Amino acid sequence: MKTFIQKLDLHMKRTGSCLCVGLDTDYDKLPARSNNVHKSILDFNKNVIESTSDLACCYKINSAFYEKYGADGIFMLKHTIQYIGNSIPVILDAKRGDIGNSSWYYAQYAFDHLKADSITVLPYMGMDSLAPFFKYRDKQIFVVALSSNPGGRDFQDTPFYNPLYLRVIKKVNAAFKNAGFVFGATRPEYIKKLRNSGYKNLLLIPGVGTQGGDAARSMEYAFLNGGKAVFNISRGILYAGNGKKYYNTIREKAKEYRDMFRI
Amino acid sequence: MKTFIQKLDLHMKRTGSCLCVGLDTDYDKLPARSNNVHKSILDFNKNVIESTSDLACCYKINSAFYEKYGADGIFMLKHTIQYIGNSIPVILDAKRGDIGNSSWYYAQYAFDHLKADSITVLPYMGMDSLAPFFKYRDKQIFVVALSSNPGGRDFQDTPFYNPLYLRVIKKVNAAFKNAGFVFGATRPEYIKKLRNSGYKNLLLIPGVGTQGGDAARSMEYAFLNGGKAVFNISRGILYAGNGKKYYNTIREKAKEYRDMFRI
Repeated sequence: MKTFIQKLDLHMKRTGSCLCVGLDTDYDKLPARSNNVHKSILDFNKNVIESTSDLACCYKINSAFYEKYGADGIFMLKHTIQYIGNSIPVILDAKRGDIGNSSWYYAQYAFDHLKADSITVLPYMGMDSLAPFFKYRDKQIFVVALSSNPGGRDFQDTPFYNPLYLRVIKKVNAAFKNAGFVFGATRPEYIKKLRNSGYKNLLLIPGVGTQGGDAARSMEYAFLNGGKAVFNISRGILYAGNGKKYYNTIREKAKEYRDMFRI
Repeated sequence: MKTFIQKLDLHMKRTGSCLCVGLDTDYDKLPARSNNVHKSILDFNKNVIESTSDLACCYKINSAFYEKYGADGIFMLKHTIQYIGNSIPVILDAKRGDIGNSSWYYAQYAFDHLKADSITVLPYMGMDSLAPFFKYRDKQIFVVALSSNPGGRDFQDTPFYNPLYLRVIKKVNAAFKNAGFVFGATRPEYIKKLRNSGYKNLLLIPGVGTQGGDAARSMEYAFLNGGKAVFNISRGILYAGNGKKYYNTIREKAKEYRDMFRI
């Protein structure tokens, strides 16, 4: 069984790109909806995966979009991950983080039950809340450092002389090997600062596309000084289609993003 | 349909106590296990609920303990909440928090799908990540401020002159009405400080019992200056039973805690 990083490196090489396709599938925005929500979403995901699997170095699946359907949603999640298969790595975007035992069970949910290759986690509750995830050494843990939403400024970059996100990055790097970080593209100068401070961690970068982050500068900075990153695009690809050739349009859009994120 | 607070007040009055019973049910620790994990856990939960429903002013259910079983676990969660019924309020301990849309779907998971009355959330991603939860005005949102685990010290109470947990409390109170906070009992002097600063928010206090928090002092401080709180006990009750009269022993233990948390 390959590690997340081995899978990622393979598909970065194959696609020549660090594009991550985000499967934040929203029933209300689907081009074809039957009364069977479960089937409509799964069919859509399958079509998107078929249209993009040679263009994406990984997929990110947002757990919230499926959990809202309860047990049915968890089935959809699991089937979608199975459909992607064992070759292309899957990041479960779940933003979990709780005391030890609970984090341990969230890790089991992501890795043992859903068979994801990676998870996103929140560091608010401290290092012992993250430790259980890092026990899965073949998996990739992305700790949210700096998020791309406006509220990312509320706590993460205060106080200005020693911001929380940087303390998170320092502490996580001191405690765990090979941590990844979620790091928003809405503030590219922060990515530059990070790389110039010597941090080479793999970054998962959201916020390009509909959130308006600066793709070219973020790309340049993310790969500075031996750094590596994947750039997530969700809505910008999923709902780019229209008309009868919906999935052809999606594929063309994904190609544009692949080229934007050429490595 | 009653609000969380109306339900809570009713059951605080009925029980004369602010004891919250935590259903963090662990299959490996059950007194009776069949090969049917689903049924074993549900039967256990039903027995615990029957043994404690006149002693607890609310129940807390830790989502992680169920999610590890995937869709099956979500069924167990939903059935357990149905079994508790509409009278006693249920807190879904889920520690969620993501950008707007995702938080919105997590809120739907808790309130529309599972029919919980309350949820715990993490504030790391800022105020816009919390806002969707607060749109459910009849529900109670508990924002994690100060957690009871050792890692609670890593980020939450730094820097010392203006700690993160206090900035969270200030910002949340400025933005939303009737917010609750998760506030660990492992540091009672912090509860006192909070009440002496004029914050009357409803607190969800874990960390008494197996985590060793000081119950008497925490109780005294939590109700200072018009404050109100519920104290959660999970393992201290669930696994207190032994032998043939397992659930009788649980009930006796729950009575002890009810008396410890008399109001």
